[in-house]
Amino acid sequence: MASLPFPVLTADEAAALVPHASAVGFSGFTPAGAAKIVPSALARRATALHAKGEPWRIGVLTGASTGPSLDGALAAADATAWRTPYQSNATLRKNINSGKTVYFDMHLSQIQPWLRAGFLGKIDWAIIEVCDIEPDGSVVLSTSVGATNTYARLADKVILELNAKHPAFLRGLHDIYEPADPPNRRHIPLFSVRDRIGSPLVKIDPSRIVGIVLNDAEDEVSGFDETTPVTRAIGANVAHFLAAERRAGRLPDGIPFQSGVGNIANAVIAAMAQNEEIPAFDLYSEVIQDGVINLIEQDRIPFASGTSLTVTPPVLQRIYDNWDNYKNKLVLRPQEISNSPELARRLGVIAINTALEMDIAGNVNSTHVLGRQMMNGIGGSGDFTRNAHISIFTAPSTQKDGAISTIVPFVSHTDHSEHSVQIFVTEHGVADLRGKDPTARAATIIDNCVDPQYRDLLRAYVKSCGSVHAYCNPDKAFAFHQAFAAHKDMRKAAELLL
Amino acid sequence: MASLPFPVLTADEAAALVPHASAVGFSGFTPAGAAKIVPSALARRATALHAKGEPWRIGVLTGASTGPSLDGALAAADATAWRTPYQSNATLRKNINSGKTVYFDMHLSQIQPWLRAGFLGKIDWAIIEVCDIEPDGSVVLSTSVGATNTYARLADKVILELNAKHPAFLRGLHDIYEPADPPNRRHIPLFSVRDRIGSPLVKIDPSRIVGIVLNDAEDEVSGFDETTPVTRAIGANVAHFLAAERRAGRLPDGIPFQSGVGNIANAVIAAMAQNEEIPAFDLYSEVIQDGVINLIEQDRIPFASGTSLTVTPPVLQRIYDNWDNYKNKLVLRPQEISNSPELARRLGVIAINTALEMDIAGNVNSTHVLGRQMMNGIGGSGDFTRNAHISIFTAPSTQKDGAISTIVPFVSHTDHSEHSVQIFVTEHGVADLRGKDPTARAATIIDNCVDPQYRDLLRAYVKSCGSVHAYCNPDKAFAFHQAFAAHKDMRKAAELLL
Repeated sequence: MASLPFPVLTADEAAALVPHASAVGFSGFTPAGAAKIVPSALARRATALHAKGEPWRIGVLTGASTGPSLDGALAAADATAWRTPYQSNATLRKNINSGKTVYFDMHLSQIQPWLRAGFLGKIDWAIIEVCDIEPDGSVVLSTSVGATNTYARLADKVILELNAKHPAFLRGLHDIYEPADPPNRRHIPLFSVRDRIGSPLVKIDPSRIVGIVLNDAEDEVSGFDETTPVTRAIGANVAHFLAAERRAGRLPDGIPFQSGVGNIANAVIAAMAQNEEIPAFDLYSEVIQDGVINLIEQDRIPFASGTSLTVTPPVLQRIYDNWDNYKNKLVLRPQEISNSPELARRLGVIAINTALEMDIAGNVNSTHVLGRQMMNGIGGSGDFTRNAHISIFTAPSTQKDGAISTIVPFVSHTDHSEHSVQIFVTEHGVADLRGKDPTARAATIIDNCVDPQYRDLLRAYVKSCGSVHAYCNPDKAFAFHQAFAAHKDMRKAAELLL
Repeated sequence: MASLPFPVLTADEAAALVPHASAVGFSGFTPAGAAKIVPSALARRATALHAKGEPWRIGVLTGASTGPSLDGALAAADATAWRTPYQSNATLRKNINSGKTVYFDMHLSQIQPWLRAGFLGKIDWAIIEVCDIEPDGSVVLSTSVGATNTYARLADKVILELNAKHPAFLRGLHDIYEPADPPNRRHIPLFSVRDRIGSPLVKIDPSRIVGIVLNDAEDEVSGFDETTPVTRAIGANVAHFLAAERRAGRLPDGIPFQSGVGNIANAVIAAMAQNEEIPAFDLYSEVIQDGVINLIEQDRIPFASGTSLTVTPPVLQRIYDNWDNYKNKLVLRPQEISNSPELARRLGVIAINTALEMDIAGNVNSTHVLGRQMMNGIGGSGDFTRNAHISIFTAPSTQKDGAISTIVPFVSHTDHSEHSVQIFVTEHGVADLRGKDPTARAATIIDNCVDPQYRDLLRAYVKSCGSVHAYCNPDKAFAFHQAFAAHKDMRKAAELLL
């Protein structure tokens, strides 16, 4: 450290450098590896300036969601003018849905190439967490890569948060590879989940590094809820489906799995690991969560590739305390590589993601609550779904004690069309949509996945459509949503459908 | 020919071999290269059997659409039990929409890997058009590749239609490459539109070839309509947009274009070729049409890669008469290569496809008329759209003398979500959706692309949604469709919206 040619700044000194209306790329994919103390200082600065009647709002780019110190603090200070590509903070979500913050929701694999192509304008600042710095400006990232390598390379100026919580021995956890752009792009030379194709370091032009901010703030990763009977049933149904595919010769050993984030994803991975017919499997995914670490310890997941190590602080400590056991079983890649369509299709990834809403045609809404309010964003689900060997969507069949059916006549927003979704799974069962026309898809979804109290309603909707190839009845497509708007209970759609 | 170890059959003798309930893979991607005389004989056989009260229906797999002798004849004979992955024949469409024929509409890049993975069952017969045959069973295809190489390899039995219309010197037009499947798949080693990576021949196990049927039937390719003021304006708008992107440094020279099929696509390619700011460009596309051949002759398209040479008989004759001028400027690839997501993203393809319906959020319906009746299928539009450098959708702003607005409040079927669509173009102008939230997207689409007589209606719809992030008003989302159902005129939505 003593020999580094970069000034050491306080968070407030660093924050004071960033002008109003800057476009700022922050490290972070989930709260893992997210910049923390400089964005908090930016939020304080915004609040002070706003109190004086002065404007200070910035564009915020990240890998994906972040923690309270970044999205939460900036949103509370109304300092986020625009935001891309993904978020999950409650305060920021409120600002987005009220129109205070412009939010552009995009496929996570595209943020890096789009920035290089100039589609999103220029990056003024990069503010990134690292665990080690070389005098030539090379850095070791911490618990995520996300889009950080591209922000660090494209930004005019870079502020480094050097976080002592993360040991310098993380060097080697990251595999930094940035493709050339068309027409000079070559193939991504990755043929197995375990391949390393790049550098352990992000190389930053040292003349752009304006300062280092020292800290030891923990990743703001919270745990997930315990599994429930519903999530365990969903997990078991996924595992049974996969075991049956394997018996039928349609699931070759050695192809990796991608799994979304959250309680259901955790339950699914756990159920797969418990199923004796499913051999140990590698992950080629975005986010490596606590549950995956447990399965690495049990040798059920020999290797996990992701773009973030999103584990709770005690689990992270366990990893660091036993680094020799983990260092050859984990790799973090830039999100354009972890989520690459080229690689998802080459590796034959089995994609397992959670739906907000599904319909009887096989379409999936991952983003918009009742079609109107943004939840988090599409994230990587589109990157994987569209290119997977098999794409599976999971959801509980109902929400809010049965007042919401997750499966509706017609989704209120489509993120993944019926062409790109093969398998629906709820706690009631599995609908295999491959090779089926809309009539057969609706029947198998209703019979196998829908909650029994909604089955006749959906059958009545199908009947209301008359003789058609696909079920769009403009008078009744949103009967469930109308019933919920009027009565807070989709079961009241009976009045409209029966 | 004399030395070939395969029996020569009449079309009727060949047709007599194919049992009821077979799954049959036919050559053909558009009518180009489609099997013709055996499917016609199959249809005659079906009609005769049906007259006797005996069942005879088969599953029909192809590359994409075909001609009247295949889809038309089999549909007229009610001989198509099920069909995938794409069609455009009027009689077959009627059978699909009335429920007589089960139709599974899928991304064209996925049919070959899905067959190898076993997701669509087994292929019993392959019936394919060729222009030359070797004694070892190797064949030279004719004017398309499509999925033929995979059908020929997987089918239990193969019938070859040897068509004298196509000269044996086509050897070399085709570049047959079939990837290994996960977990053993490598990269597709193609780095330029002009690369050749495979064999000029399709190798067929000679023990599976049950016979050769001789014929000289022409490809049943019909021409397209002349351009109109509307299609010319759409073309000019696309060309202006591309020229502006190039001036802004966002469109590197040397990246190829993909263009859909039809009148608008022809007008767009012609307008691009006429624009002096746009340098000559290669095509990395599905279908090579008459218009492309004209531009090859003018050196505006130096090279075209596709999976079918869908040109009218006089143009095909011109190509054959001047083969030395063309043989190094054309290549036909299997559709899993022409439409490969890996390659679309690597090459940075600019995708230009035609929408049936678009909405103010940026979603595109490519398939379902009013959400209910199947038009043709998604084809390759999803393969390219989702992975393109820039994805453009074009459409006339209205249809049926203004009674239908192509741009509606909410699409009645989503094939391409707002996450995967960047540019809308109508005859009125261009909406650039990149980096915009739903509010800004709706405004730019309404102001730039919508027909003036529908703009206030769409603004009224937006207002009806209240304070939301995205515009799904379950009471009014389908106001345009309801007005059309009631009055055959979407303008009557004024009663519901104003």
